[in-house]
Amino acid sequence: MEGKGISQAVIGRLPRYFRYLGELRDEGVERISSQDLSRLMQVTASQIRQDFNNFGGFGQQGYGYNVEYLYAEIGRILGLDKQHRLIIVGAGNLGQALANYMNFEKRGFLVQGIFDADPKLYGRVVRNLEVEPMELVEQRIREKNIDIGVLTVPKNSAVEVADRLIGYGIKAIWNFAHVDLHVPEGVQVENVHLSDSLMKLSYTISCYEKQRG
Amino acid sequence: MEGKGISQAVIGRLPRYFRYLGELRDEGVERISSQDLSRLMQVTASQIRQDFNNFGGFGQQGYGYNVEYLYAEIGRILGLDKQHRLIIVGAGNLGQALANYMNFEKRGFLVQGIFDADPKLYGRVVRNLEVEPMELVEQRIREKNIDIGVLTVPKNSAVEVADRLIGYGIKAIWNFAHVDLHVPEGVQVENVHLSDSLMKLSYTISCYEKQRG
Repeated sequence: MEGKGISQAVIGRLPRYFRYLGELRDEGVERISSQDLSRLMQVTASQIRQDFNNFGGFGQQGYGYNVEYLYAEIGRILGLDKQHRLIIVGAGNLGQALANYMNFEKRGFLVQGIFDADPKLYGRVVRNLEVEPMELVEQRIREKNIDIGVLTVPKNSAVEVADRLIGYGIKAIWNFAHVDLHVPEGVQVENVHLSDSLMKLSYTISCYEKQRG
Repeated sequence: MEGKGISQAVIGRLPRYFRYLGELRDEGVERISSQDLSRLMQVTASQIRQDFNNFGGFGQQGYGYNVEYLYAEIGRILGLDKQHRLIIVGAGNLGQALANYMNFEKRGFLVQGIFDADPKLYGRVVRNLEVEPMELVEQRIREKNIDIGVLTVPKNSAVEVADRLIGYGIKAIWNFAHVDLHVPEGVQVENVHLSDSLMKLSYTISCYEKQRG
């Protein structure tokens, strides 16, 4: 039943719940009411209850939610109870930054390789991994059972590289290239288009300035 | 009138329109119908017309939109007709990656400084800019009239650094730290929480696997 008919908006909010609950857990908090969670996260208590009702409500019993249970349940819904094995394709600054981002491992995302088309980068060590040539991508995906490809190549090669990864059996692409990918049924894509995000910021600055006149 | 009552969903789609129109323009396309734009962007023509009607419709006249005009208008709505001056606070891998991201300058976002609290990074040259100590942030913001602060510091110092930047007169924060900032009225924040994005990908993988059984 999970995942059926649940809106993108609700799904988009789950990681934030997970993050706050993880912090509460780390602070030793055992129970929290929807009112307290509401104040902390600055969303309405009714929003929280509605969101959670999509997943059966998580058994709030008057005296609040069990933090550890709720954290584990939302983690399970997000698929974080399983490990994911990923490679990074594109070993430029952004690819290296992502490789070095320790937090991903904590969440079960294991970086298993980093690749580039530029021979000057071959052998450079990033987070205990040597940058390898693109020619090795297929072999590594198959032998290491990689399920996620992180795409940090330039825009003009992104579509071709994505097609190759999919051909080699990748199930999901975390796409940082500034282009929309069209992928076959069964391949999941999550885009991080940094320029789009910066433009949204520019929009809100511009609106605020117009309001002030 | 612009920006009043326009939904976040519409605003969130504007950068994508802008990107596609920029590509059409670069390819020398002068006019495009909503049907052709619809096919290209894989959204319905009715969605496009509804979105554009929020801004007066952009004068489609039977034979389609003028690409150059539409590109310029959407750019103007996004505030891209003005230059923005930004600094990057946190000169780790991610901060360096963002400093090196050439595309931002093309859109009028000028990187004017990069700062870190780690003396080992002082003087390192990133995109023609020397990494400077945090103590110089205030002076640089004031003398260079900086309006955007890019926050790429660790989570545990992000709130304090954001407060400092706001105290120094920053109007907008592009926040990559994995924490929600609570800022005063008039300060704009756009979050890029990479872990949240990766969790959404994990969710869609997990859903797809459950459907397949």
